[in-house]
Amino acid sequence: MAPHPDRLLGIDPAVRALARELYAGTADAPIISPHGHVSPELLETNRPFTDPAALFVTPDHYVTRLLHSSGIELDSLGLGDSTTPPREIWRALCANWRRFAGTPVRYWLEDALTRVFGITLAPAADTADELFDQLSERLSQPAYRPRELLESFNVDVLATTDDPSDSLEHHRRLAADDAVATRIIPTFRADAYMSPARRDWPERLEQLSAVTGIDCGSYHGLLDALRNRREHFKRHGATATDVGVTDAWATPLSDEQAESIHKLGLAGGLSRRESVFYRRNMLFQLGLMAAEDGLVMQLHAGVIRNHHAPTYNRFGPDTGHDLPAVTTFTEPLRELLNQVGTNPNFRIVLFTVDETAFSRDIAPLAGFYPSVYAGAPWWFLDAPAAVRRYRAAVTETAGFNKTSGFIDDTRALCSIPSRHDMSRRLDARYLAELVIDHQLSEQDAHAIAKALVSDIPRAVFRLGRSPATSPDPNPDTPASPTP
Amino acid sequence: MAPHPDRLLGIDPAVRALARELYAGTADAPIISPHGHVSPELLETNRPFTDPAALFVTPDHYVTRLLHSSGIELDSLGLGDSTTPPREIWRALCANWRRFAGTPVRYWLEDALTRVFGITLAPAADTADELFDQLSERLSQPAYRPRELLESFNVDVLATTDDPSDSLEHHRRLAADDAVATRIIPTFRADAYMSPARRDWPERLEQLSAVTGIDCGSYHGLLDALRNRREHFKRHGATATDVGVTDAWATPLSDEQAESIHKLGLAGGLSRRESVFYRRNMLFQLGLMAAEDGLVMQLHAGVIRNHHAPTYNRFGPDTGHDLPAVTTFTEPLRELLNQVGTNPNFRIVLFTVDETAFSRDIAPLAGFYPSVYAGAPWWFLDAPAAVRRYRAAVTETAGFNKTSGFIDDTRALCSIPSRHDMSRRLDARYLAELVIDHQLSEQDAHAIAKALVSDIPRAVFRLGRSPATSPDPNPDTPASPTP
Amino acid sequence: MAPHPDRLLGIDPAVRALARELYAGTADAPIISPHGHVSPELLETNRPFTDPAALFVTPDHYVTRLLHSSGIELDSLGLGDSTTPPREIWRALCANWRRFAGTPVRYWLEDALTRVFGITLAPAADTADELFDQLSERLSQPAYRPRELLESFNVDVLATTDDPSDSLEHHRRLAADDAVATRIIPTFRADAYMSPARRDWPERLEQLSAVTGIDCGSYHGLLDALRNRREHFKRHGATATDVGVTDAWATPLSDEQAESIHKLGLAGGLSRRESVFYRRNMLFQLGLMAAEDGLVMQLHAGVIRNHHAPTYNRFGPDTGHDLPAVTTFTEPLRELLNQVGTNPNFRIVLFTVDETAFSRDIAPLAGFYPSVYAGAPWWFLDAPAAVRRYRAAVTETAGFNKTSGFIDDTRALCSIPSRHDMSRRLDARYLAELVIDHQLSEQDAHAIAKALVSDIPRAVFRLGRSPATSPDPNPDTPASPTP
Repeated sequence: MAPHPDRLLGIDPAVRALARELYAGTADAPIISPHGHVSPELLETNRPFTDPAALFVTPDHYVTRLLHSSGIELDSLGLGDSTTPPREIWRALCANWRRFAGTPVRYWLEDALTRVFGITLAPAADTADELFDQLSERLSQPAYRPRELLESFNVDVLATTDDPSDSLEHHRRLAADDAVATRIIPTFRADAYMSPARRDWPERLEQLSAVTGIDCGSYHGLLDALRNRREHFKRHGATATDVGVTDAWATPLSDEQAESIHKLGLAGGLSRRESVFYRRNMLFQLGLMAAEDGLVMQLHAGVIRNHHAPTYNRFGPDTGHDLPAVTTFTEPLRELLNQVGTNPNFRIVLFTVDETAFSRDIAPLAGFYPSVYAGAPWWFLDAPAAVRRYRAAVTETAGFNKTSGFIDDTRALCSIPSRHDMSRRLDARYLAELVIDHQLSEQDAHAIAKALVSDIPRAVFRLGRSPATSPDPNPDTPASPTP
Repeated sequence: MAPHPDRLLGIDPAVRALARELYAGTADAPIISPHGHVSPELLETNRPFTDPAALFVTPDHYVTRLLHSSGIELDSLGLGDSTTPPREIWRALCANWRRFAGTPVRYWLEDALTRVFGITLAPAADTADELFDQLSERLSQPAYRPRELLESFNVDVLATTDDPSDSLEHHRRLAADDAVATRIIPTFRADAYMSPARRDWPERLEQLSAVTGIDCGSYHGLLDALRNRREHFKRHGATATDVGVTDAWATPLSDEQAESIHKLGLAGGLSRRESVFYRRNMLFQLGLMAAEDGLVMQLHAGVIRNHHAPTYNRFGPDTGHDLPAVTTFTEPLRELLNQVGTNPNFRIVLFTVDETAFSRDIAPLAGFYPSVYAGAPWWFLDAPAAVRRYRAAVTETAGFNKTSGFIDDTRALCSIPSRHDMSRRLDARYLAELVIDHQLSEQDAHAIAKALVSDIPRAVFRLGRSPATSPDPNPDTPASPTP
Repeated sequence: MAPHPDRLLGIDPAVRALARELYAGTADAPIISPHGHVSPELLETNRPFTDPAALFVTPDHYVTRLLHSSGIELDSLGLGDSTTPPREIWRALCANWRRFAGTPVRYWLEDALTRVFGITLAPAADTADELFDQLSERLSQPAYRPRELLESFNVDVLATTDDPSDSLEHHRRLAADDAVATRIIPTFRADAYMSPARRDWPERLEQLSAVTGIDCGSYHGLLDALRNRREHFKRHGATATDVGVTDAWATPLSDEQAESIHKLGLAGGLSRRESVFYRRNMLFQLGLMAAEDGLVMQLHAGVIRNHHAPTYNRFGPDTGHDLPAVTTFTEPLRELLNQVGTNPNFRIVLFTVDETAFSRDIAPLAGFYPSVYAGAPWWFLDAPAAVRRYRAAVTETAGFNKTSGFIDDTRALCSIPSRHDMSRRLDARYLAELVIDHQLSEQDAHAIAKALVSDIPRAVFRLGRSPATSPDPNPDTPASPTP
């Protein structure tokens, strides 16, 4: 198992030769990760990973869903209250390695195994035990603890995703620790507070009330408490929020309507429809808050969560059956964009798992509104062929500067360098194709390749200029994001 | 006219060279055809084809719709009660040959004419008569009768599509005939019994009652009769069912509701909406039956039938104006998959003519549910560029093992080898591209190419192991499909 | 800045070599432009363009929307009652040149600057002034006046887009002027009369009443007036109509219903829903009129107009925030096509900005109905990658002869040759790919490439045969389009 140096750089020899050059200019650039799900506690405590299955299989729903789709039960992959020994979980992965052919999961795993762990043995039924032993031995070494890994990955900025009630204690300590070179910042994600129909909604409101000292028993109280925590997040370095919703509708309610649904939600007896109205209004309100405080709004819309109720009931959320919905943005965001779409303080980055939205909704919106950016291909679409379709669908209408730069969106720490590397290779290839087809100059291609891994994500996510980059003022970053 | 040996194998020389090797490994493999529309009567009686028009034009709605779209009336192509002489029909095809450029119809016809009939003369206005004579001469020879053709095509398994009321007498006789090497099996397709709004519904119920001795005057009677006939089909070798519906919604009704609509349907005065509810419940019930008896459920969803009423009224169904509808599967199948989605006995293969469903619905469903498989590109999408889009849209999320293998879906006997050959070439090319781009090893590509034409379709459709293949247990085929 | 002679002709050397040959056969063919927005007044008066900003920036919403999306206000690009001096507008374009990388806007601008104006200096902040001066100097020369440019572009037919109330005086004078070699014809576009909810609807009806002498205070009067003006347009050379609608639904109302909504629209107090019903009925009626008078019906469906109300209020329509809607055609056009879909006098060309409709709706409709044609990729989709997706999505189902040929749809006179040239290159490349992949003969590819720029658009738009082409009768053009 030895990943080829030219992997993903293209099929045509001229494209590949140029892509190789373009990629050489970005391969070692520091990683900017403006959105992901690495646990800040993991990084702060720096406890070693316990075993290969806990690192590579059980927590990664990309891996478990593919094994599950092949008939392997989630219980035997360590989910839920499973007692399956790690070694057996690992064996299940290795024995089914061939089923991952052609998927990015295999690509990332091979990449991480070889480049991060120096493994050369290919996973298979008869190598599983030896691999398990080799990896376990590595994981016992200090160099393979979370923070040491992060440092070796050359991650400049890492954003986590956090609940508004979170104290951000881990972030505070990480920021105070001079030994941590990566800037680790929180991201405000208020999903749990948006839908009164959620079973845990009342409990969450109570928790938020307790944290803020603001009574969330009313709609107005909740808005105030959220505003309060956004400031808290900003004080801890946050530059962005995130929100995940079934659809992108952001439709305001009157205060009276919202207040009445809020009360009903607490009292019980709310209809599903009213909860949807409430959620759509909250999305609108979060947009207004973003225009006020300048936190960049990431919108991940169009996922049907927990499709298979029996699996959800037994194993909980994030277990591989969150599935894409038909998704549009243009009509759903109309009212919000009419309000704040040309406000220089407002910024929204759109992500979809329905790729029809790339050329129909996202690129045209990003190609008119200064506030709208086309988010990188997400989730089911973060693989070579889908990434290439994304660039082909978005660039002609919105250019490169209105795209977000790569986002790894991962909870799998060791996949971070593999995912960013994949993106850099694919962008190099896309740019090389434009050059070889005489649509772009080589010089422009080099500049764009570099911008896509540094200036562009820094500007889009208001991360400030890198000390290493040139002193050109970047017109995308307002000097002061708050008015 | 001489099809190039490298056709469809790719443009890049390195891809083509490798694709050639991969294709060489599958080009002569026996054909597995788990879904199609060849007439079992045709095969049993083995009557010679009467003339080139009856073989290549009149019954093939791919051909007639393209000619019709060019302004040629269906009557002059032999449809309905046409009296157009075969030679004139054939002339119309030849005179319009150029209009087929770039379509798979021309590809299949050229392929069949050259490889099956040894024709080298290209169709054109001035070659029509000579071609007609050449072909007529061939058709008069014993080697060109249906069964002799089938044998020369090296078809290992051929599934037909049959009405539940069918006696399956032809299948029984074909199975009993030692001279028939191909395993010819029926497929249970109950479309005609699902929609009370169909004009012929009462008549169909009566017919089914007569065949089964079970009174289909009630909903419960109909379910029992269908169960009864599924067993009949299984006894005649069926391993699968098929169902074609306007949408994929499978939504259960209570027994009372279904019974009441059933009665209303027979009495007259049913609303269109109630008929839709009934149909969606029937799809759900067919899913439950599949989970019981282990017949693989093929779901062909999203076709608007008989778009042009005047053509339908004059020429009947299947005359080229069945058109794709916007299609989704994820929400529509939720209730059914919650019930039986992880039942090892249940299996469903999803087909669409709306290609947006490949990456948004089908691949994610197949990438989680062990029971769900991504069906081959169907109908409007069974052509080179569309097939390549299908692989690119599905593989990264679901891999190769959760796809169905190729399905020819044809009533045109002579196009069977051409269609399977096209698919083998395109899969070889797709795999070669992955190898040349260093995403897959050459060894894996060879194994996958072979699996796609043998182990995979055999496993997906529960056809049992081929005597010729290796004795590895295949985890996709439960030892006993019925509990 | 020097566009490469092989631009867009493909990446693979064999494809490119053949595409070069195919392109050579069409590069200098006269331009047929059956749909666009060049002002007939501009051509008739032949007033010189005032300055580079007025020629290339302010009126071109492709350019201004991209600059706006980068944070540049429309006011500083000359829109509305802007007083920004042309030189500053031009500077804004040049300073942001890098933001256009990868977009067709940059391609067309570079192409026009170099090939039409002989400019070699690349736009940039520090070349803006010099470029402005060079271009201003050119524009002062007689050779750069509108008509001289048109002549130098070798435009054989140019269709404009015109309101039914238009006198067509400019067209009449242009036709009467022997010095004008181009056949400049009007296109009937009645959008303004279809939606009673439009603020200016009553005013437009009055205007039309005045022009025709037919009282448009009633629905019947409006229909009569429209019929009357269609004849007027035909007398001035029109062969087609155009219509732009939010959706493609063509659903008839009874005369009573339509009359009642019409009255309500004039009296005030109409609901939004009733206006939509009225519009959909008008689309149906326009279809019936087309079947009567033989004017080819162009249908541009699925655009959400004026998405950002503040921009619309300040700067008016066509300012970059018209955005694509989810679009279907198959069900929406069912009633109309059932009525006139096989009427040889009726012809409809379908355009979409939602590319999912290409393979799902448009190609299947064009692949059955003799009256339906697949329009060229439109608006957001008129760029290299999107054009290639269009051919790949449409050809396999509908062939080449059921596509419209290229349509530039532009108000930017100087982009006409660049746009047609882009299309010719891309078609040459697509055809070359089919040949190199052995799906098409070289001879067929040459014939199709030529047909796509001459016989096909001439036939589709009933423009008559070109004097230069071969005398073969073309079956797509009925000898007499009116019965």
